Amino acid sequence: KKSFRVVILPGDGIGPEVIAEATKVLELVAASSKDIDLKLETHDFGGCAIDNHAVPLPDSTLKACQEADAILMGSIGGPKWGVNSKVRPEQGLLALRKALGLYANIRPANFASDSLLDNSPLKPSVAQGVDIIVVRELIGGAYFGARKEAGVEPQEDVAWDTMIYSVAEIQRITRVAAQIALAANPPLAVHSIDKANVLASSRLWRKVVTETLQAEYPQLALDHQLVDSASMLIVASPRKLNGVILTENLFGDILSDESSVIPGSLGLLPSASLAGAPSVADYRSNDFKPTPGLYEPIHGSAPDIAGQGIANPVGTILSVAMLLRYSLGLDKPATAIETAVRKVLDTEEKGGHGLRTADLGGKVKTTAMGEKVVEVL
Amino acid sequence: KKSFRVVILPGDGIGPEVIAEATKVLELVAASSKDIDLKLETHDFGGCAIDNHAVPLPDSTLKACQEADAILMGSIGGPKWGVNSKVRPEQGLLALRKALGLYANIRPANFASDSLLDNSPLKPSVAQGVDIIVVRELIGGAYFGARKEAGVEPQEDVAWDTMIYSVAEIQRITRVAAQIALAANPPLAVHSIDKANVLASSRLWRKVVTETLQAEYPQLALDHQLVDSASMLIVASPRKLNGVILTENLFGDILSDESSVIPGSLGLLPSASLAGAPSVADYRSNDFKPTPGLYEPIHGSAPDIAGQGIANPVGTILSVAMLLRYSLGLDKPATAIETAVRKVLDTEEKGGHGLRTADLGGKVKTTAMGEKVVEVL
Ligand SMILES: CC(C)[C@H](C(=O)O)[C@@H](O)C(=O)O
Ligand SMILES: CC(C)[C@H](C(=O)O)[C@@H](O)C(=O)O
Repeated sequence: KKSFRVVILPGDGIGPEVIAEATKVLELVAASSKDIDLKLETHDFGGCAIDNHAVPLPDSTLKACQEADAILMGSIGGPKWGVNSKVRPEQGLLALRKALGLYANIRPANFASDSLLDNSPLKPSVAQGVDIIVVRELIGGAYFGARKEAGVEPQEDVAWDTMIYSVAEIQRITRVAAQIALAANPPLAVHSIDKANVLASSRLWRKVVTETLQAEYPQLALDHQLVDSASMLIVASPRKLNGVILTENLFGDILSDESSVIPGSLGLLPSASLAGAPSVADYRSNDFKPTPGLYEPIHGSAPDIAGQGIANPVGTILSVAMLLRYSLGLDKPATAIETAVRKVLDTEEKGGHGLRTADLGGKVKTTAMGEKVVEVL
Repeated sequence: KKSFRVVILPGDGIGPEVIAEATKVLELVAASSKDIDLKLETHDFGGCAIDNHAVPLPDSTLKACQEADAILMGSIGGPKWGVNSKVRPEQGLLALRKALGLYANIRPANFASDSLLDNSPLKPSVAQGVDIIVVRELIGGAYFGARKEAGVEPQEDVAWDTMIYSVAEIQRITRVAAQIALAANPPLAVHSIDKANVLASSRLWRKVVTETLQAEYPQLALDHQLVDSASMLIVASPRKLNGVILTENLFGDILSDESSVIPGSLGLLPSASLAGAPSVADYRSNDFKPTPGLYEPIHGSAPDIAGQGIANPVGTILSVAMLLRYSLGLDKPATAIETAVRKVLDTEEKGGHGLRTADLGGKVKTTAMGEKVVEVL
C-alpha cells in the first residue's frame, strides 16, 4: 500500500468552494483503490494567510508543501490585499514556486467537450479543434532576474528588470515540453516562442531549444515563432499552434492567458507547476519518477461571486487529474476523471447539453457540479 | 505656399506595390491644394538596401529621412535576409526609429467598414464596435536596454536583456496617449498596461502614467490592466479596451499585433511612429506643431504573394492619412481619405459589398483598389 501526502491550499474567494468539490473527487479515487493511502492536510496560503499569520506563505505552510508529494491549490487574492498593499498574496505564490523549484508550468487550452464550442469568443470555425498545451518556464527570466526600483540610488528616476536565462534553465524546460509532446500518440509538435530578432536571451533560447531537441528528441517536429506573431496566430488561426507551445516566463504568462480564453470560460481549465520532467508511466512501474508539483485552476479568486456557491469547479477537478498523473503516477484514474467531466458537460439534460455553471450561462451550483462528477466517476 | 518633403521607402516584397497606390493618393492631395507643394524622394531601405549598399539603412537614406517632414514606408524583409543572416532588414528599422527619436507608435485596430465584420476571427457579437488605438513606447525598454549575448565572458552560458525605463521616457509617451485620447470627442479612455505585480519597470510605469495624467490631463479616464489580463480581454471582450491602450515597447509589440487581427486582415491597418506628441490643429494655425514621423502599413513584406499585384493597399493608403494629419497638419484631406476608403469597402457592387482584395476573399487587384480610392476621393 503506497501512501501519498497531498497538501491542500484552499486560498481566498471562490478557492475554498472549488477545492471542496475537487477534494471529493480526490477522496473517491483514494477510496476506490486498495493500493493507495491518501493523507490530506489543509494549510493557510495567500490572503487568508496574511490575515492569520501576516505573511502570504507562512513557514508552516512552506514546510508542509516541501514534505508533500503534491499540492492542490484553489485561488488566492482579493481587493482586501490589493496592489497598494505591502504584503500581497501573489508574493507567496512566487516564493512558493521558487522555494519548491517549480520551473515548469503546464497549461492546456482545449475543449473539454465540443458542446462548449459556442461559448468561445472565436467563431466556431476558428475555435473548433484547438488543442494547445502551453509549457511555460516559471522561475526564470524577468520574474526572478536582478531588478532596480525607481527611487533608489543611483539614478532614482530609473527602474529596470533583467530577462535572464542560462543554458541549463532552457534545457530542462525544453525536456519537459518534449516529455509532454511524447506522451501523446502520435507525438505533438513543439512550437517554441521567443523574440530572437531583438533579445539576446531569446537568441540563447532558440539555440538551446533547437540543440536540445535535435540531440535528445530528434523525432519531434519543432518550429520557432516570434512572440508578436504567436499572439496573432492564437486569435487568427489557433489550430496552427496545436501541440506544445514552449516559452519563457513572461511570454508564457501572456500567451497562456490569451489562449485560455478560447474554450469560453476560465473556469474550465486546470494547470500544473512541476519541479521536474513529467513521467506518465504508472507509479507501480519501475519507470515512474514522481514529480513534485502544485496544481490549481487557472481562474482567479473571483471575489465578486465568492460565497454564492456558483463557481465552476471543473478547472480544479481537472487539476486533480493532472496531480494524479504527474505527481502520483496514477494515469488511469486521471483519465477517468477527465472522461467523467466530459460526460457531465456533454450528456444531454433538459437544455440540450450537459450541466452548466453560471460562467457558461447555466444555473448549476458548484456542489451539484462536483457531485455529478463524483456520481459519474 | 508651404512645401513638404516626404521620403518614400518602398522596401521589399509587396512594399513597392502598395506604396505605388498610396503615392497616387498622396499626389492627388497635393495636386488638389494650391497651398501645398509636395516633394517626394524614394530611397533604398531594408533588404533591397542590403543588396545595393550592404546595410539595411544606408547613410544616404538616413540623411534624407532626417531632413524630411515625414517618411512613408512599405514593408521590409524576406527569406533572402532571414534570421540566420548577419545583416537583417529589421536592424535598419530599429536603427531608424532610434536615430529619429520615434518614441511613439500609434496602431489603430478598428473596422474601416462594418461590412468587414464577417472577416474577423472573433464572433460578430464580440468584434462589433471594437475601436482600439494602441500607443506603444518604441525606443525604450528591453529593445534598447543593455544586453549580454551568450558565448561572451563572463558566464558564457548566460544571456540577458534589460527592461529599463526612466521617468522622462514614460512621461512623454503618456502625453502622446493623452493627445490621441483628447483628439476624439468625447475624449477616449486610457488603459495603461503593465506587469506591476512583478516588474520594477512596470511599477515605475504605473506611477508615472498615473501622476502625469492626473497632473496634466485630469479630464481623462484612466485604468490599469496587467498585461496577461489585457491579452485575455483583447480576445474575450475587446470593447472593454476601446479607447487608447498605453503600454511599453515589448508588451506593445505583442498586444498591438494581437489586437490587429480583430479587423480580419492585416492588410487594412496603418501605423504611425512619431517623434513627438501629435497636434491635430491645421498646419496654417499657430497652434500646429509638426511631428516628424514614419508611416507604414502593419503587414509584412508577404514574399509569398509579392509580384502578383494582389496585395491590399488600404493599410498603406490609411498610413498616408495619418501622415497628413500628424506630420503635415492636413487633417481635412486625412479624413477625406479615410472616408473614401470606407466608401470603397462599403459601396455595394455585384457581390453585395464593396471592393475586396485577395486577403479579404475578393478578386480586386492592388492597382484597381488604389485607383478606386483615388476616383472616389
Ligand atoms: C499572480 C502573478 C504573479 C502570476 C504570474 O504572473 O506568474 C499569475 O499571473 C500566473 O500566471 O500564475
Ligand atoms: C521587426 C521587429 C523588430 C519589430 C518590433 O518588434 O518592433 C516589429 O515586430 C514591429 O512591431 O514593428
